[in-house]
Amino acid sequence: MNDLILVGKHNDVKAEIIDDGQNARGVEKRVLIGLKEGAPNYIMRHFKIKAGGFTPNHAHPWEHEVYILKGNGILKTSEGEKLIKGGDYVFVPPNESHQFCAEGGAIEFICVIPKHGQ
Amino acid sequence: MNDLILVGKHNDVKAEIIDDGQNARGVEKRVLIGLKEGAPNYIMRHFKIKAGGFTPNHAHPWEHEVYILKGNGILKTSEGEKLIKGGDYVFVPPNESHQFCAEGGAIEFICVIPKHGQ
Repeated sequence: MNDLILVGKHNDVKAEIIDDGQNARGVEKRVLIGLKEGAPNYIMRHFKIKAGGFTPNHAHPWEHEVYILKGNGILKTSEGEKLIKGGDYVFVPPNESHQFCAEGGAIEFICVIPKHGQ
Repeated sequence: MNDLILVGKHNDVKAEIIDDGQNARGVEKRVLIGLKEGAPNYIMRHFKIKAGGFTPNHAHPWEHEVYILKGNGILKTSEGEKLIKGGDYVFVPPNESHQFCAEGGAIEFICVIPKHGQ
């Protein structure tokens, strides 16, 4: 029987690589706490973007709640570029365009989405 | 006008001290992304527990999705004690008892709850 309370290491979760060489580059995504783990309402993911990499520049009807774990980078938005670094939190409301870009070294962050945003 | 996309530093958020000397000790709680910031579905909080401190041992009908930022400690559960350290994620399903305890040094973590769990 599995433990009811799950403790895991993010490095032990298999990464999905997001990199089409154009819209996204050098992104590793790990679903830490998702539907498979029994998440009732929202999904916790871990992202690592290597230096020079970026997520897609897009918008969608659900929010992101983000905490930057390490590194620094730029968040491109409709309001311009915002600097982000370890220890920052980021709230992207629904329908706001956003793109996370690593600068210098890799950047790592936690990003939580509603389960209907899968 | 406030920016639509919010970027903040967790250290700039005022802490609520949770410490009655008995059920909880040495806990700083910061609501990073909450109702005030427009969170539609779930709330991101930052916790820091000083060495030897602990959160209340309790259970409630909502889940926790947690990411340990730094430090190490013990999570007390109905299944026994689980070691936790920086880089770990923790899923506490609804109604499972839990208590986060710092060991050695301080421990810091992100904890996400549904907005109806306020």
